[in-house]
Amino acid sequence: MTKIYYPYTQFVSDMQTLVQKIDKPFDAILCIARGGLTMGHFLGIHYDTRDVFAINSISYDDTQKLDEVKIFNIPDLRDAKSVLIVDDIVDSGDTLLEILRVLGEQFPSITFYTASIFYKKSAKISPTWYIHEATQWIEFFWEVDLKEK
Amino acid sequence: MTKIYYPYTQFVSDMQTLVQKIDKPFDAILCIARGGLTMGHFLGIHYDTRDVFAINSISYDDTQKLDEVKIFNIPDLRDAKSVLIVDDIVDSGDTLLEILRVLGEQFPSITFYTASIFYKKSAKISPTWYIHEATQWIEFFWEVDLKEK
Repeated sequence: MTKIYYPYTQFVSDMQTLVQKIDKPFDAILCIARGGLTMGHFLGIHYDTRDVFAINSISYDDTQKLDEVKIFNIPDLRDAKSVLIVDDIVDSGDTLLEILRVLGEQFPSITFYTASIFYKKSAKISPTWYIHEATQWIEFFWEVDLKEK
Repeated sequence: MTKIYYPYTQFVSDMQTLVQKIDKPFDAILCIARGGLTMGHFLGIHYDTRDVFAINSISYDDTQKLDEVKIFNIPDLRDAKSVLIVDDIVDSGDTLLEILRVLGEQFPSITFYTASIFYKKSAKISPTWYIHEATQWIEFFWEVDLKEK
């Protein structure tokens, strides 16, 4: 599969586009680690909120049954009315679906919005806002730039 | 006070220097939100660990008493032997000291290391590893780049 390098300059431009698209208010930003951490950092400062949290997931790939996703380190969202969940890419959608399921159960009164840079059309869920459709393998700057001299 | 812009290219170079300096093993990376999120993201990929977590703090500035720092969203670190705590700058050192105190109480068997990009000599604690001494106000790229056209 062709790999496409996604540079920092493109990220800055995409975040500028994203904040134009986001047309709902939210009280907190929840980064899906690791992919959403840089994005949540920038957006937290843009929206001037210190309530930038992270959540973790593990995917168990098991050929005997359906892929299973385990969610952990769920932050305390009690004070939020609505939360923006961010990730770099919505690929299969399994992680995002499971996070929304777990958070919806634990915080039934909170409205959750989702934003990603990339989104695959084959995903089981579409984020509320995204920038690009992913048709190739993306190599994000946070994955490769430290390797270069 | 003079403000110094800290660009992305400098960050990449500093992270390359930092990973040369870090000479102890660790099982997990803990980002102090928001400042340590981008740094933890890059380092998590460099060290090939999915155990990248975040922790939050609020500082209450009260002229009547000493500054008080409240730590929340403490991740589950039970499985770790040693943890690298990361932040962009160690300024007064109050946040880092309180995080180390709270985590040391909750996880007495874990060894905690700390790394920051900047460190102020007047801070009450020095990180295990840092890159620059801060003598001026730093404007990080994640604080300003979205504002530019």
